[in-house]
Amino acid sequence: MFGLKRERTLCVGVVGLGLIGGSMAKALKKYTGHLVYGCDIDEATLSEALADGAIDEAVAENDLSMCDLVFFALYPQQTVAFVRENIRQFRPGALLVDLCGVKRFPVENLTDFCAENGLCFIGGHPMAGRECWGFSGSDADLYKGASMILTPGEHAPAPALELLEGLFADLGFGSITTTTPAAHDSMIAFTSQLAHVVSSAYIKSPRAREHEGFSAGSYKDLTRVAKLNPQMWTELFLENADDLVEEIDTITAHLAEYRKAIAGNDAETLFRLLDDGRRIKEELDR
Amino acid sequence: MFGLKRERTLCVGVVGLGLIGGSMAKALKKYTGHLVYGCDIDEATLSEALADGAIDEAVAENDLSMCDLVFFALYPQQTVAFVRENIRQFRPGALLVDLCGVKRFPVENLTDFCAENGLCFIGGHPMAGRECWGFSGSDADLYKGASMILTPGEHAPAPALELLEGLFADLGFGSITTTTPAAHDSMIAFTSQLAHVVSSAYIKSPRAREHEGFSAGSYKDLTRVAKLNPQMWTELFLENADDLVEEIDTITAHLAEYRKAIAGNDAETLFRLLDDGRRIKEELDR
Repeated sequence: MFGLKRERTLCVGVVGLGLIGGSMAKALKKYTGHLVYGCDIDEATLSEALADGAIDEAVAENDLSMCDLVFFALYPQQTVAFVRENIRQFRPGALLVDLCGVKRFPVENLTDFCAENGLCFIGGHPMAGRECWGFSGSDADLYKGASMILTPGEHAPAPALELLEGLFADLGFGSITTTTPAAHDSMIAFTSQLAHVVSSAYIKSPRAREHEGFSAGSYKDLTRVAKLNPQMWTELFLENADDLVEEIDTITAHLAEYRKAIAGNDAETLFRLLDDGRRIKEELDR
Repeated sequence: MFGLKRERTLCVGVVGLGLIGGSMAKALKKYTGHLVYGCDIDEATLSEALADGAIDEAVAENDLSMCDLVFFALYPQQTVAFVRENIRQFRPGALLVDLCGVKRFPVENLTDFCAENGLCFIGGHPMAGRECWGFSGSDADLYKGASMILTPGEHAPAPALELLEGLFADLGFGSITTTTPAAHDSMIAFTSQLAHVVSSAYIKSPRAREHEGFSAGSYKDLTRVAKLNPQMWTELFLENADDLVEEIDTITAHLAEYRKAIAGNDAETLFRLLDDGRRIKEELDR
């Protein structure tokens, strides 16, 4: 069923031209010769994307049949709803790839459904972001050097994966990691979701309001991602609640160890806790 | 008693040529014409500092009597012990300034003691650091744009403060904040110490070992300062235990709110928690 090659000019659809989709469209235009068709519910965004040269053409959601490959840069529930509602609009044999921050939810809801309708669905997650959202924050180089994660499932055709791996390399990604949706969601709970929860909790100290003149790099780093898109992260957290709750419990238990050593004036234990953390971090950075 | 002016060439001692003291010595040499006398228990460090031109002369701890101004870049307990043991070695009327990360402990132990001995002691804390320690990591521009905090106490002579404020501006600091030792320790518990505790706790998740290919900027930021000097931070945390325990309790209580909303699939509460954090962060960044 799958005969696309990235050596020829592909017709690529991008549904949702926010930070992630807008950046994907711009990267496709900057680094490849493929044609880019943009779809967004916001007319002003479509006009801006056209004026910017981020897309070759603005298309309606029921007008994606020319696309060989379609990226979905919507929230997960929107993605599932969009694909289900418009399943008859895609070209037979087309490759559909979502770019959501969780993978079990879209993959479980769309893989078999797409296959039954003669389409190939593959889950993807570009590991890049920024403390803003919407097309205005998008950037052709957002993905430069970033990890691209793919969760293709066992039945994904090898040529589709080859096409995507080559394409993401063309777009500037630094590495491509292939894994299962469950392993993705588990790891992302630690590397990304917990970071956003902790950062958001950190900034809520009453002392935060008076910190001017006392701020250093560590404060800035710990609170950077507190400036997040609350609607998107609410959905992502709830679709990965099991893994994320486990991570919150883990850091809470570790914090309690430090607290106990500090409150008990236990220098020996506190040194060991800090030295263990230093050692792990140094090993991981190697 | 205090008649120094930074317009003339001062003799400045720097005791402890690690990351903080080494950077202070290098900045003094790069940005001022003052003479710099370095003191360190490690002979190799002294030789390196001389060879680098970071100091004009290496001196023994009982040989600081030529110094108008002496900076102490030691751990707090070492600082207090050094000043008490060598109190007769300083030039009468000299200005002594410590650069420790806590201020109540050195200020309470040294202010009156120094005054009784005809010396002026002022607590200071340059808000800058790096994930390394020792002279090899020091940099003349470590303090560029950073905050310098001073906790002079009510009896500190105004000319001494004027001298320091001018000198720190010369060295490239971006701002100078004057406060009390208690207010300093309270704020630093939030902006710096908690960041190091959280970062150290974060890296201890079992998932950390497998995160390759899943890492993004948020993970990197949240775990950067886990690579810390465990000996120094053990002392700093224990000398600020009351404020730091309060901050650990605050973030733990906030984390519990997010956990409850996530585990209970409560989208409304979770959105509010995240949106509150976003709003606070945006207000503070303005």
